[in-house]
Amino acid sequence: MVFILNPDAKQEQIDSFIRQWEAKGFSTIFSVGTEHRAVCLIGNTSSVDMDHVVETCDIVRYARRITEQYKAVNRSVHSEDTIIKAGGVTIGEGTFTVIAGPCSVESREQILSVAEAVKASGAKILRGGAFKPRTSPYSFQGMQAEGIELLLQAKEITGLPVVSEIMNQTQEKYFENVDIIQIGARNMQNFDLLKAVGRMGKVVLLKRGMANTIEELLMSAEYLMTAGTDKIILCERGIRTFETMTRNTLDISSVVLLKQKSHLPVIVDPSHAAGIRSLVAPLSKAVLAVGADGLMVEVHSDPKNALSDGAQSLDPEQFDALMRDLKPRAALENKAI
Amino acid sequence: MVFILNPDAKQEQIDSFIRQWEAKGFSTIFSVGTEHRAVCLIGNTSSVDMDHVVETCDIVRYARRITEQYKAVNRSVHSEDTIIKAGGVTIGEGTFTVIAGPCSVESREQILSVAEAVKASGAKILRGGAFKPRTSPYSFQGMQAEGIELLLQAKEITGLPVVSEIMNQTQEKYFENVDIIQIGARNMQNFDLLKAVGRMGKVVLLKRGMANTIEELLMSAEYLMTAGTDKIILCERGIRTFETMTRNTLDISSVVLLKQKSHLPVIVDPSHAAGIRSLVAPLSKAVLAVGADGLMVEVHSDPKNALSDGAQSLDPEQFDALMRDLKPRAALENKAI
Amino acid sequence: MVFILNPDAKQEQIDSFIRQWEAKGFSTIFSVGTEHRAVCLIGNTSSVDMDHVVETCDIVRYARRITEQYKAVNRSVHSEDTIIKAGGVTIGEGTFTVIAGPCSVESREQILSVAEAVKASGAKILRGGAFKPRTSPYSFQGMQAEGIELLLQAKEITGLPVVSEIMNQTQEKYFENVDIIQIGARNMQNFDLLKAVGRMGKVVLLKRGMANTIEELLMSAEYLMTAGTDKIILCERGIRTFETMTRNTLDISSVVLLKQKSHLPVIVDPSHAAGIRSLVAPLSKAVLAVGADGLMVEVHSDPKNALSDGAQSLDPEQFDALMRDLKPRAALENKAI
Amino acid sequence: MVFILNPDAKQEQIDSFIRQWEAKGFSTIFSVGTEHRAVCLIGNTSSVDMDHVVETCDIVRYARRITEQYKAVNRSVHSEDTIIKAGGVTIGEGTFTVIAGPCSVESREQILSVAEAVKASGAKILRGGAFKPRTSPYSFQGMQAEGIELLLQAKEITGLPVVSEIMNQTQEKYFENVDIIQIGARNMQNFDLLKAVGRMGKVVLLKRGMANTIEELLMSAEYLMTAGTDKIILCERGIRTFETMTRNTLDISSVVLLKQKSHLPVIVDPSHAAGIRSLVAPLSKAVLAVGADGLMVEVHSDPKNALSDGAQSLDPEQFDALMRDLKPRAALENKAI
Repeated sequence: MVFILNPDAKQEQIDSFIRQWEAKGFSTIFSVGTEHRAVCLIGNTSSVDMDHVVETCDIVRYARRITEQYKAVNRSVHSEDTIIKAGGVTIGEGTFTVIAGPCSVESREQILSVAEAVKASGAKILRGGAFKPRTSPYSFQGMQAEGIELLLQAKEITGLPVVSEIMNQTQEKYFENVDIIQIGARNMQNFDLLKAVGRMGKVVLLKRGMANTIEELLMSAEYLMTAGTDKIILCERGIRTFETMTRNTLDISSVVLLKQKSHLPVIVDPSHAAGIRSLVAPLSKAVLAVGADGLMVEVHSDPKNALSDGAQSLDPEQFDALMRDLKPRAALENKAI
Repeated sequence: MVFILNPDAKQEQIDSFIRQWEAKGFSTIFSVGTEHRAVCLIGNTSSVDMDHVVETCDIVRYARRITEQYKAVNRSVHSEDTIIKAGGVTIGEGTFTVIAGPCSVESREQILSVAEAVKASGAKILRGGAFKPRTSPYSFQGMQAEGIELLLQAKEITGLPVVSEIMNQTQEKYFENVDIIQIGARNMQNFDLLKAVGRMGKVVLLKRGMANTIEELLMSAEYLMTAGTDKIILCERGIRTFETMTRNTLDISSVVLLKQKSHLPVIVDPSHAAGIRSLVAPLSKAVLAVGADGLMVEVHSDPKNALSDGAQSLDPEQFDALMRDLKPRAALENKAI
Repeated sequence: MVFILNPDAKQEQIDSFIRQWEAKGFSTIFSVGTEHRAVCLIGNTSSVDMDHVVETCDIVRYARRITEQYKAVNRSVHSEDTIIKAGGVTIGEGTFTVIAGPCSVESREQILSVAEAVKASGAKILRGGAFKPRTSPYSFQGMQAEGIELLLQAKEITGLPVVSEIMNQTQEKYFENVDIIQIGARNMQNFDLLKAVGRMGKVVLLKRGMANTIEELLMSAEYLMTAGTDKIILCERGIRTFETMTRNTLDISSVVLLKQKSHLPVIVDPSHAAGIRSLVAPLSKAVLAVGADGLMVEVHSDPKNALSDGAQSLDPEQFDALMRDLKPRAALENKAI
Repeated sequence: MVFILNPDAKQEQIDSFIRQWEAKGFSTIFSVGTEHRAVCLIGNTSSVDMDHVVETCDIVRYARRITEQYKAVNRSVHSEDTIIKAGGVTIGEGTFTVIAGPCSVESREQILSVAEAVKASGAKILRGGAFKPRTSPYSFQGMQAEGIELLLQAKEITGLPVVSEIMNQTQEKYFENVDIIQIGARNMQNFDLLKAVGRMGKVVLLKRGMANTIEELLMSAEYLMTAGTDKIILCERGIRTFETMTRNTLDISSVVLLKQKSHLPVIVDPSHAAGIRSLVAPLSKAVLAVGADGLMVEVHSDPKNALSDGAQSLDPEQFDALMRDLKPRAALENKAI
C-alpha cells in the first residue's frame, strides 16, 4: 500500500507518520520524487482501512494498493524515471549510454587500447571483467585484483568511468574506485551478495539471470534497494530457451515491461544475448528503437585471441561503425548518445 | 552440394547436366538468381568428387558443399534476396511492408471499417482470419467460408491484397482469390499441409511455430519450396519460454539469422509475440531497426469487444500513430513503407 | 457447471432437462459413469443460479462449478477412470499396457519379425508408422498406404491390435482396420484433424505436443471428445527445454497431473522423450512406478540400419530384458502387464 | 587425457610421472579407485602423443582421450561408483538414502518433532534450512545461526546426521558440525562459493540450478573437486520450462545420464521439482525405480502454517505412508533403505 503525500507535508509530520506504521509492525519505504513524495507500507496490509487513513490523515493526498511484490522499485511508488550519475555520466533521462570494453581485462596494453578506441568512437563508460565467473574451473578466471588495478589505470588515463563484476562480498575492497558494480547473471539471485552490495551504496548494474523472470529481476533490485542503494541499472542479457542458434534469446520485450513496471533505467547487453558478432550491430539498433536507456557491448582489440568471449566481441572498427550507425537513430529518439 | 554455373551456360546444357545427376539418383534444385544460376544436388553427395566436376564440366564455374539440411531456401544456393509480389505489393528489396487487420473477420462492417482505416494509415496488405485455430473447442472458430467472402469484399473495395490462414488442405478452394496464404504457427510442421499449399503455387506466409527452432522453420520452408512455391515470406511471432509476463518471447535475433541463412524475406508479428497492446508499438520500431522486411499487426475497430485476441489489438488510432512513428524510421533505413 | 443426477432419474427426464438448457443457448455434455450420470453445461454459466436448479429440479442431486476450460475430459464431470478396449486389449483399470514396434514400417519382413518378437516378450499392441512427419522433406516419409497394409498383415498374423499415425484427414480410408489412431505431437493442435478423427469414433492415441502445456493437451482431448470419441489415450512424450543432452525432457510429473485432472488413461513414450537407447529401460521403470497406464516403446530388429529413430530403438533382446524387468514391478503395483 | 596405471606402479613412480607432466604445464588429477589408479591431464593435450606415452612409460597400462570438459568427476577417469559416508550413513553402493525434514528450521519444537517423526519412519538424514534464499526480501529469511544451532540439537537428540544450505563463504564457521553442506540451486554457478566449500573438505550436496544443463552441473562438481572435496552428492530438483502447472519440471532422465557420465551419487528432490504435495509420493517411487541413490523430501509437522514451502511439504503421516510404500520397491531394486 502506498500513500502519496500532500506537497506541503512537513518532514516531521512524515517521520511521525512513518513511526506510527512501524510501531504497528510494518516496514516502510519513503520515496522522494520530483512530482511527489510517498510512503509505502510493507507487510500484511489486508486489514488496513485505506480510505480511513486518507480521510483522517492530513498529510496523505491519496492511497493505492500495490499488488506486485516489488515495492521500492515499483513505478506506482515512484512515478518518475530514476536518473543515475556515475563518474559524471548520466544514465536515463533522454540519454542512450553506451558501455563498451573487453569481456576480460587481459593486460595493460589491451585494456588501454580498447579504452581509447571506444572512447574515441563515443562510448561513455568502460567495461572490463577482472573476476570472471566461468563454467569450467580450467578456463581463465580473470586477472582478479590486478585486473581491477589495470581497469582503474585505464579510467585515469581516459577519464571514462568504469564498470566491473563483483563475484562475492569478500571482494568489496577492490571496488572502492570502481564507478559501477556489476552483479552478473549467475549471481542475480545470490541474495547475500545483493544485500552486501546494496549496503555499499554505489551504482549497481544488475544483470538478469538467464533463467529468471522479469518479476524476479525486479525482486532482486528490491533486495538492493532495501539494503541501501537506489542507483540501480537493470540489464537484459538474453534468456535460456530451446533455441540453440544463439547463445541466449534476447528478450527485447522485457525492456518495455521493465520500464513500465519500474522507474529504474534499463540497458541491454546484446553481446552475451547473441553470442555471435554479426548480430551485435542489428540488435543494438533494435535496442535503441525499443526504448532502452543504453547498451553494453563487448569490444576487444583482437577478438580472435581473446581469453574469453571472442566470438561475440566487436573489434574497434566494427564498434566505431556501430556508433556511427546509432547516432542518427538516437537523434530520432531524442536521446543524447 | 551446389554448382554455380557459368553465365554463358545454355539451358540445354544445364538440362543435360541436371538429367545426368538425376540419373545417378540425386534430386536437384535449379535456382535462377540475378547474379548467377545454380544447380543444387540433394542426396548423399559424400562420394561426389567436387573438384573433378568443376574441372571437367564446362558449364560449372565453381562448387561448394552445403552443410545445412535446407538447400533450396539456403542463401548459398541463391545469394540474392528473394523479392515477392503479391497483388501489386512488393515484399523485400528496400521495402518495409506493413500488414494489418483484425485477428478474425467478424462482420462485413467490421472488416470494411478496419480495412479502410489501416489503408488510410499506410498499411499495404489486409489480414483477417476466417478459419481460426483455437485452443478450446468452445471458443469462436472463425466465420469460415463466409469470413473469406467478406475479406475478399474488403479487398475489392479497398484494393488492398489480403492474407488469411488456411487450416487444412480441404479448404484450398476458398483461397483462390486470397493473395497470400498463411500457414499458422501450430501448422508449421503439418508437413502434408505444407506440401499441399506448396503445390498451389501462391505466395505463402509461413509463421514460425512457437516451439520451433530457426532451422526447423527453414526446413518447413524447404517443404514448401520443393513442393512448388518459391514465394515464401517467413514470419517470426514469438517462442514459448519460461517467461509468463508476455504471451510469447519475441525472438528478435531470429530476424537477423534468417536473413543471413536464407534469401527469403522475413517479417514479424509483434501482436502475437507480446500479447499486450502497449508492447506492439515499441516492438514494431525494434523490428524495423533490426532489419526485417515488414510487420504484421492486429488492428480491430473495437478491441474490447473483439471475438479473439482483443488484448493485443491496436485500435485504428493507435495504429495510425504507430505508422506515423515508423515512417521517419523507415526513411533512415532507406526503406519504402 | 456440472449437474450430478439422481440415480433414479429417467432418461426422458434427462433428455428434457438437456433440451431445456440447450434452448437457453448452452451446449451440454451428458456423461455416464458407473457411479453416476452427469450433465455438464458449456457456455457462460455465470448467471445460472446453481442452488436454485438443485432445489427446484428433482433429477439433480447436486451441482458444481468447473473452473477448468476442459469439461468432457474433466474428472469432475466423470469421476471414474475411463477404460478403453482396443482389439481385445484393455487400457486402464489395473493394467499396464505395453505398445511396441518400429518407428516406421520398412518392409514386410521387418514388421513381421518385430511384431512376433515383441508379442513373445509380452507387448499387447503393435506400433508402426506408415505416414511419417519428418522435419526434412529429404528424409524418408514412410511407406504410406503400403505401410498400413503391411502393418495390418502383421496384425492378422500375430493377432496384436495395431496403432499408427494419421497425418491428415484425407487419409481416413486407410485407417479403417487400424485399431488405434495416433495423433502425433506435431498435430496435437491441428484442430481440424482432431475434429475429423473425433468423428471417426475410433480409439485415439493423442500425443502431447513438444511445447504444449498439460492444459492444452486436455483441451485437444476435449476437441476429440466433443467431436464424438470418448476412447482417448493421452501420451506424454517429452517436452522441449533448454537441455540438449536428451532429445526432449520427459515430463514425468504430467502423468500424475493428467490422471488427477482427467479420467482418461495416460501412457508414456520414453523412446521419443529421451532419444537415447540406454535411457529407455530406466525411464520405463519410472513410468510404471509413477502410475501410468502403459508404455509405448520403439523396437527395431536392426536399430543401426533403421530408416528413422534408430538411436532410440531397442532391439528385440533389449526389449525382452525390459519386459522381464517390468513384470515383478507391475505385480507390486497390482497391475496386469 | 587419462592414463590408467599398472597395478604394480609404485607411488614414487607415480609421483615422478605426475611431476613430469606438471613441469610441462599441465594440471593433473590423481584418482584412486578400487579397480585401478589413474592420472588425468588437464590442459591442451592435443600435441601429446598418447601411444608414445603408453609404449615408453612402464607404469601406464593404457590411455584414453576425454572429450568432456569435466575430468575429475568423469566416469572415464574413475570408473567405480563413489560411495560417501556422512555421519555414519552411506550414500551410494546399494542404498537408497532418504533425507527428510522441513524446508526451514522454525523453532526447537518444530525441528525436534519433525526429526523424531522422520527418523521413526526410516529417514536416514535430517534436512533443515537456516539460511534461506528467498525471491523476496520481505519473505522469511531463515533463523540463520540460531537455526543451525537448533538443527544440531536435533542431530544430537536423534542421532541423525544433518544437511543444511550455506549461502556464502562468510558462514563457514556455522557449518563445522553440519554433516553435509548444501549448495542451493541458485548458487550452483556461484563459483567462488564452490571453491570455498570445496576447500572445507566436507560432504557437499550440490543441487542443479533450475536453468542449468547436466553438463554445467558436472562442471560445478568439477569446481568442488578441484578445490579439494571428492565427497559430492548431485541433486536433481527440477528445471524451468514453459509448463506452469508444476513449480519446475522434474528432469528424471538426468538421473540416468548423471550416473552414466559421472561416478558421483545422484539423489532427487521431488518436493521442489513439483511444488505440489500430491505429486511427491508418486515421483518418489519413480525416482527409486529410475536408479537414483536417494531422495530429499520436505516434511513439516504442520504444513499449512509452514513459514516456507508449505504447499509442497508432506506431514509426518504422509511421509510415513510414503516410506512404507518405498520399502518393498527398494527391496526389488536390491537397495537398502
